[in-house]
Formats: sequence, C-alpha cells, structure tokens
Amino acid sequence: MRIAVDAMGGDHGCDVVVLGALQALGRDAAISRIFLVGNQDQIQAVLDRHHCRDARISVIHATEVLTMEDKPVEGLRRKRDCSIARAVELIKEGQAEALVSPGNTGGVVAASTIKLRPLSGVDRPAIATIIPAPENEFVLLDAGANVECRPVHLAQYAVMGSVYARDILGIQKPRVGLLSVGTEAVKGNELTLETYPLCRMLPLNFIGNIEGHDLFTNRVDVVVCDGFVGNIVLKSCESLAIGIFSWLRKELTRNPLRMTGAFLAKGAFQTIKRRVDPDTHGGAPLLGLNGTVVIAHGSSREKAIMNAIHLATEAVQNRVDENIGREVTAANKLLVANKDHTASSAL
Amino acid sequence: MRIAVDAMGGDHGCDVVVLGALQALGRDAAISRIFLVGNQDQIQAVLDRHHCRDARISVIHATEVLTMEDKPVEGLRRKRDCSIARAVELIKEGQAEALVSPGNTGGVVAASTIKLRPLSGVDRPAIATIIPAPENEFVLLDAGANVECRPVHLAQYAVMGSVYARDILGIQKPRVGLLSVGTEAVKGNELTLETYPLCRMLPLNFIGNIEGHDLFTNRVDVVVCDGFVGNIVLKSCESLAIGIFSWLRKELTRNPLRMTGAFLAKGAFQTIKRRVDPDTHGGAPLLGLNGTVVIAHGSSREKAIMNAIHLATEAVQNRVDENIGREVTAANKLLVANKDHTASSAL
Repeated sequence: MRIAVDAMGGDHGCDVVVLGALQALGRDAAISRIFLVGNQDQIQAVLDRHHCRDARISVIHATEVLTMEDKPVEGLRRKRDCSIARAVELIKEGQAEALVSPGNTGGVVAASTIKLRPLSGVDRPAIATIIPAPENEFVLLDAGANVECRPVHLAQYAVMGSVYARDILGIQKPRVGLLSVGTEAVKGNELTLETYPLCRMLPLNFIGNIEGHDLFTNRVDVVVCDGFVGNIVLKSCESLAIGIFSWLRKELTRNPLRMTGAFLAKGAFQTIKRRVDPDTHGGAPLLGLNGTVVIAHGSSREKAIMNAIHLATEAVQNRVDENIGREVTAANKLLVANKDHTASSAL
Repeated sequence: MRIAVDAMGGDHGCDVVVLGALQALGRDAAISRIFLVGNQDQIQAVLDRHHCRDARISVIHATEVLTMEDKPVEGLRRKRDCSIARAVELIKEGQAEALVSPGNTGGVVAASTIKLRPLSGVDRPAIATIIPAPENEFVLLDAGANVECRPVHLAQYAVMGSVYARDILGIQKPRVGLLSVGTEAVKGNELTLETYPLCRMLPLNFIGNIEGHDLFTNRVDVVVCDGFVGNIVLKSCESLAIGIFSWLRKELTRNPLRMTGAFLAKGAFQTIKRRVDPDTHGGAPLLGLNGTVVIAHGSSREKAIMNAIHLATEAVQNRVDENIGREVTAANKLLVANKDHTASSAL
C-alpha cells in the first residue's frame, strides 16, 4: 500500500511528521511506499539526521505550504504547488491510495474535494471523528467539512458513518442517532425534522433522535449532524475534558496530602488518560471521496501521525470508500423510490 | 417580593418543590409571599407533615399537571388548568413578580411566552444557562427556547446575555462571543455570518466568533447561539462531565490502593464537585419576557429549588427585565439606523 503524507502543514514542523511516518513504516508491513511531500531539503535533512535509508520512502518536492492562516480555496489558488495539493495529486494520479495531512483542515477538505471529487452518489464528503466515551467510542460526523447541510446530506452521512463504524470499529449493527434537542421524532430544527423520515427509510440500525445527554452513555455508535453543530460539539467536549483534567491536576497538587493520594491512585488516572488520548486514532477521515484522506490534528506529534497513517491503511484494506460508494448509491435509490413520502425539499 | 412556584411539574413530585420553597423563605428575607401552585391536597399534606404555618405561603389550586410527556402547546390547550399555566397567570395578574418551575421546559416557554408576551423590542425569549468552567463561569444563550433563529434574534440574545452577566454575575464588561466554527469573521454558517456584523454595531464588549475550544478556557462570559446548538452543547457537556466523574469514581474504587489514594486526595474532588454542582444556580431564566421566569431542572431537589427561587429574586431586585427591555430597544434602533450596512434579511 502506498501512502502520501503531507509533511509540511503541521504545527510542529516537518520533523515530527517524518518521524511519525518512519514509525508507521516500522509498524505496518502492509505499507510498500510512503511519499513524504513537501520541502525536499528540509525533509531530506530530517531523514539524514536519523540515518534513514529506507527504500520505501520517496520524497516529493513541493515548493509551498498552505498555512493555518490561509483561507482554504483562495490559498489553494495562490499556492498551486503547496504540499497538500501535491499530495492529493499523488492519489489522483494513482500513485498513492491514501493521504494523511496534519495541515489546514479547510485546505485538505477543499483540495481533496476539488481534485478527487466525491464518490458517485455522495453529495458531500464528511469528517468522521471517533470520540471516546467511558464505556464505548462513537463516530461523530460531520465534524466540520460542511457547515450548511440539506437533509439528504445528513441521510448520506448516516450511511457513511454506519459503514465506517462497521468496517473500522468492528461494530456489527452500529446504532445510528440523529443529534437533536429531544428524542421524539417531532423535536428538532427544520433540518433534523426532514432528515428523520429519510433515515427511517434506510437499511440502518437507526435509533432515532438522540440528545446531547446520550453522547457519553453508550447509547449510540454513530452521531449524525451538520458540520456546524458537529464541529462545535467536538471542540466543546475536547475543551471541557482538557479543562476538567487540568483542573484536577491543579487541585491534586495543591498540598502534600493530596499529592500522596494522587500518587497512590495514579493507576486510575492513567487508565482514563490512555483511553481519551487523542493520539490513539491520530486523525479523522474525510469520508465520501474517491480516495482515502485522513486529516490529522495540526498539533499532532509522532505517535499521532503514525496512528493516522495506520487508520488510513485500515480504511484502504477494508475498502471503506468502495463500501460507502455502493451503500450510499443504494440508499439514494431507496430515498428516490420513497420520495412521495417525503417533503420534496429534503432530497 | 412575591414568587409563584409551580409545585407539580418536577420529576420528584411536589414534596421536594415545597420543601425547597420553605428553605428559600428561610433564606431570603426579601420574599414576602410564595404561591405554591398545584394540587391543593398534596401540597397541604406536605406543609402539614412539616408543621408549616408560615403566613407567607399561599396555596393556589390547579387541577392538572403538564407532564414531561405532554407536547407543550397542545398540552397547554388540553390542560387549561395546569399548574404551569396557573402560575404564569399569577404574574400576569400582577400577584407575583416571578415564577419558578421545574416542569416541562417547552411547556414553561410556551405558557409564559403566550401569556406574558415578550418585552417590547424583544422578538424571542431565550433560556440563559450559567455554565461553570475551571476559572470562571459563563452564560450560554439560547439553551433551547428557540431552535430556529434569525440573525436579529441572536443579536438581541447578545444584548440580553450581556445584561444578565452584568446584573447577575456582576461582570462589568462581559465578553460576548458568537459561537461558531472558527474565530475569523468569515467562518461560520449563514446565521452566524449575518449575525456577526450586527453584533459589531452594538455597544457590547463583542469579542467576535468563539469556537468550542474557547468555552472552558476563561475567554468568554456570554456565549451566543441558536437554541438548537445551545441545547446540544449544554447537554453534551453535562453528559461528558457526569461521564468523566463517574468513570473516575469507578477507576478510583477498583482496588484498595486507589481507594486509599482517593481518600487522601478527597479535598481535590470535593472542591471541583462544589464548583460544578448544578444545584448551585438551580435554574435558568427565560429572558426577554414581561416578568421573571426561572426554569429549574426537572430533576431538581430541594436545594436546587431554593437556589432557583433565589435566582428569581436576584433578577427581580436587579431589574433585569427592565434593563433588557431598555437595552434591546436601544440596540434595535442602532441596527435599523445601520441597516444599509447589513443584508436586509438579517433584520
């Protein structure tokens, strides 16, 4: 398997990305080639510094970098030879099967949507993030690719998320929930009210509306929402979890007694920390495109990059794209066949 | 001050509501009367059981109860003599200045909006919830009164939230943020993109867009969003916080060593628990109406009811409604005067 890695866009420079890629090569025998895309001199310097002579590595030069400050579409137009664009082209040219980038999220979404195009049948790609909960983990999508959605987009996300939870998380019949403000079918905004009957028509394990209260109580495996809501929920929950743990650290180190207690109980904190470690999955796939694209956190360190690459190999091996294409196309047919039962505006 | 308390709608029956009201009477000398609204026999039985002869208590009989299962508007039409409706009428008739209800949120919103009407100048009332963060607390509105909003509604919420944070939380120049998916003015959905310039025109300490990441890092005092997003964020964060603490409890009691550690460090947990206790504020006001309405959690116990009543007295004493009416009216004038600079659809 051949993976293109955008070595430039991360917050910590190309060093950590290159090292993460080397770790992935050491771990995944299935990887036959990694393209490190970006400034050739900088990348080569990192490889030399670590005495790397791995023949599976190719460095692909790109003269520019799309930074976090660049506006996605405008930036891509201005920086035609940026590393993200070059990495996406490797997929388009058939040289790579998957791409991993820790760069500007909007830039990755725009470059890959424009160059790779959505799968036949898929209207919009969606970012699918895996979120850990005390007793399970769930997939939330869309986490921010599209802030304005129509009901049919959400219905397709339901299918895409269900395929992903089945093929990657190994959940046989993923429980799919529509994120809303009440569990009854009549609760919600215009978008969710029109999406609900569409999801009902599909061959999903659709459990109906779910509320914010249901997210962390092992009630749902796939949480469907538009990219505006999803991005806000994801970031709010990240912020809260980080806030609680740093608050706890502060309180636990306030006096020697508490510090002793915390030391004795440290196994408890470590167990939780391991489970909620954002580096465990390392990235979130942009589902629904012709090609596997994994967006890593801008702040990714080596381990996160390695795991994001691993996630990409799993998606390729399990033919997630192919399955999404087939199942969304089948879903679209069902929705059209039943369209007399829906508000026409929903499709 | 005279407060109407809907004694019937809570999850734990009228006992806890009546006892919470008695505690409020013991604490707040400013309260001259509490109307306990609901089934007279049941309420009187609780009062008798606790040998209560407080002359400041009046029991107002209502024959029906709007349950959590009732659809708000339909339920109110069917159960004309329900305790929520009767309690709202006490404000309308001028007998009470404020209302506290732990009942069906949609029912409280509908009954008070229909019977009390929004303040002149306010288009829609909003539920303002105070959320604790490690270093501060912030007001989030709307937490679920209106799931479909227009830009002018959000701009009015910004004013209402700012007044509330100033008058109740005592923050001189509350930092008002518009909840979106990026801090730049160009990031957001149609609603927030059109709301942004409106907020800029107003005499607020408007800090622009905020993201989910900013919520728990002491960057913002008033978080403005539509009721769909706000309800989901509020409930997701509640669910996550409860999930983390119960997970922690489970891990900390897994073996004797951890239990010893947890015992030694218990001061740390208690400090945090006190700060995040949802009973501290007890309820969330429905801002923007002719009259003070505080919605308590359905699961409220005595202390939460007492604190919700206290919140109501504070709102009345600080003339929050009057200030909101005046400041929203002034804001509307500014928006109209500047309307050439805005998309006309925003107003």
